[in-house]
Amino acid sequence: MASELIYELGHRAKCASASLAVVGTAQKNRALLLIAEELEARSGAVLAENEKDVQAAAEHGISQVMIDRLRLSEARIRDIAQAVRHVVDLEDPVGVVDHGRTLPNGLNILCKRVPMGVVGMIYESRPNVTVDAAALCLKSSNAVILRGGKEAIHTNIILVELMRSALAKAGLDPDCICLLTELSREETVKMMKMNEYLDVLIPRGGAGLIQTVVQNATVPVIETGVGNCHVYVDASADLEMAVRIADNAKTSRPSVCNACESLLVHKDIAAAFLPKAAAAFAAHDVVIYGCDRTREILGGKVLKATPAEYAKEFLDYKVSVRVVDDLEQAIEHIAQYTTHHSECIVTNSYQNAQEFTARVDAAAVYVNASTRYTDGGEFGLGAEIGISTQKLHARGPMGLRELTTVKYIVTGNGQIR
Amino acid sequence: MASELIYELGHRAKCASASLAVVGTAQKNRALLLIAEELEARSGAVLAENEKDVQAAAEHGISQVMIDRLRLSEARIRDIAQAVRHVVDLEDPVGVVDHGRTLPNGLNILCKRVPMGVVGMIYESRPNVTVDAAALCLKSSNAVILRGGKEAIHTNIILVELMRSALAKAGLDPDCICLLTELSREETVKMMKMNEYLDVLIPRGGAGLIQTVVQNATVPVIETGVGNCHVYVDASADLEMAVRIADNAKTSRPSVCNACESLLVHKDIAAAFLPKAAAAFAAHDVVIYGCDRTREILGGKVLKATPAEYAKEFLDYKVSVRVVDDLEQAIEHIAQYTTHHSECIVTNSYQNAQEFTARVDAAAVYVNASTRYTDGGEFGLGAEIGISTQKLHARGPMGLRELTTVKYIVTGNGQIR
Repeated sequence: MASELIYELGHRAKCASASLAVVGTAQKNRALLLIAEELEARSGAVLAENEKDVQAAAEHGISQVMIDRLRLSEARIRDIAQAVRHVVDLEDPVGVVDHGRTLPNGLNILCKRVPMGVVGMIYESRPNVTVDAAALCLKSSNAVILRGGKEAIHTNIILVELMRSALAKAGLDPDCICLLTELSREETVKMMKMNEYLDVLIPRGGAGLIQTVVQNATVPVIETGVGNCHVYVDASADLEMAVRIADNAKTSRPSVCNACESLLVHKDIAAAFLPKAAAAFAAHDVVIYGCDRTREILGGKVLKATPAEYAKEFLDYKVSVRVVDDLEQAIEHIAQYTTHHSECIVTNSYQNAQEFTARVDAAAVYVNASTRYTDGGEFGLGAEIGISTQKLHARGPMGLRELTTVKYIVTGNGQIR
Repeated sequence: MASELIYELGHRAKCASASLAVVGTAQKNRALLLIAEELEARSGAVLAENEKDVQAAAEHGISQVMIDRLRLSEARIRDIAQAVRHVVDLEDPVGVVDHGRTLPNGLNILCKRVPMGVVGMIYESRPNVTVDAAALCLKSSNAVILRGGKEAIHTNIILVELMRSALAKAGLDPDCICLLTELSREETVKMMKMNEYLDVLIPRGGAGLIQTVVQNATVPVIETGVGNCHVYVDASADLEMAVRIADNAKTSRPSVCNACESLLVHKDIAAAFLPKAAAAFAAHDVVIYGCDRTREILGGKVLKATPAEYAKEFLDYKVSVRVVDDLEQAIEHIAQYTTHHSECIVTNSYQNAQEFTARVDAAAVYVNASTRYTDGGEFGLGAEIGISTQKLHARGPMGLRELTTVKYIVTGNGQIR
């Protein structure tokens, strides 16, 4: 019965997670190394399945950008395998004692890191997420149910199959890594409400996907990765630095969530700064949506910015620009449009830097540096399962530790209250 | 328009929370002390309003237990005021640096504790929760929207009014503490979906209330406090200790979430242990629901336990009992019925203690001590806003720190990627 598949997967993943709770680091690492080996050894078969997905995507008229995300190559498979080997090198977060104490009555309390249990990943069509997420969940002793985009279904099936075969070779329950292959909306919504089997849901993808999960899920959700990130250039900014940061934040990799989408410029330096910024952007044909003052300064090629542009995460060579009266107006603008990801001020004013970092409500707030640094690798987490833009549990890049919870272990010799 | 009240409150609380983000500890403590003073100074007026609630409850035929929870007295008001003064003494969690580093490229990363923003509390008819929750939210620089039970509405209105007046006297925005007075289900469900204004929802109360919030909320929820807690008496247990722990866990305060609801007994010691336990329970007229083997040992007065009794959080002088074959069956039983709150093994076997603590999935797992210790005060948190039984964000007793999130503050001098 196809419509019960997700509960069947949930049950199997839950049982597998119970077995994982008592597996040591060495065995998990062995499984990860076997996954990396299988990936490389069976790359031909993976590429053949991937080609089916790419063909189907082309036939369905899916955009070239999407097809590029979907397509694997020998080199990309090697990169994915290397990323798995890198997870082997990361410290196992399970069993770490966060804190502990002995109470006056002799009770010993330990607060110890333990796995979440079963993680549900809902994502789009990047096949590398399938392997990355599975590897991070395995290293943190969580079972995972993967629900990737239907465009990548053939690729995901073979990737999960080879990972499961590696698990079995390492003496682990293959159900530690499960793939939902029935991709109807109905089945996915059931997954989001499957509180008895799932401990956390992590959606990864565009704003639409994230909102669908937030609106429908009863399982606790960690929102990730929608980034309408601002760079505010203050009156006292070093303008060369401001151009460098704005350009890097906007154009170094526009498709990622930590890229700048909106530029706010203090009115006193707008006439000096904006032409320089526009010149840098022109090298990448960046489309500019500006307020009236911006258009006065930059002239005809700037499109008119409406609230829709200020609210938009372009993920493209496009940027919205607004000239503001002062820091206060910049902070208000950000409060209205922020997705609480990464926000930056370029300034030479100590007071404005303090005020901006204290008042702007985001996972990461920058002074005089590019928003592009909000990343698990850059922050020293080693690898990331996503970037949390909510406040519960984890905020900003989430690594292995964020895939664990705690358990209090209290040992005594007959204490009663 | 009554039906828009909650959005109005949400907006005001959000604005107030922005102002709180930059208020120092001294000013918050001044406000807390003023709240305690106002409570004592206006106790007569509070008692008069409380009497209205008690009268109405009596007229509506509400149970004596519920009325006792609702009723205030001079002494209880003094206790509530003292609890507020105690919050003054607790360390301010805001601004604490969790960790930080300087990257090789010179970027400085600080991970700093910041308030959540706006906390939504949904709870039942204990008026002390109104003041406790407001005080803890204030100390952690969060605005709060309180939605208490309608039985306590007159009491809650005057309590919130006097707290708001104390806030104003301390120079703080009174909207830091808001009360929802329109108590329809419709309005409450709107509150649960008010993601633009609320950062977290904390339901406190019975299983029904918690489930309603989990099922309806789109705002992130921290589940609290449903405790179907087990005490498992292993074959090697010191039987006197086991009786002492079982009796304390069951009868010292049956109405709280860390009380024992279910007793599991290894078959080898059941005949020796159960009569002793039953004798201790008899002093409190505890009603016993037992499996067949329990009834064979204890005889006629034991009622038959069905899955309904094993699943039930009695919060009363009632207990379910099951004789199990071994540790494995005890762990399986707990896995089936646990609410992931507090679970206990009484044993003298090192191996069984290890296995129980590793495999039982709960916020707190005990060896040879009463489950009644799962409590913010006992665990050294000073005060608690609730006991989390979920895995995201916080697990077990939640104190001031758990009412905060983090913000990464990244400072540089022009770094780009």
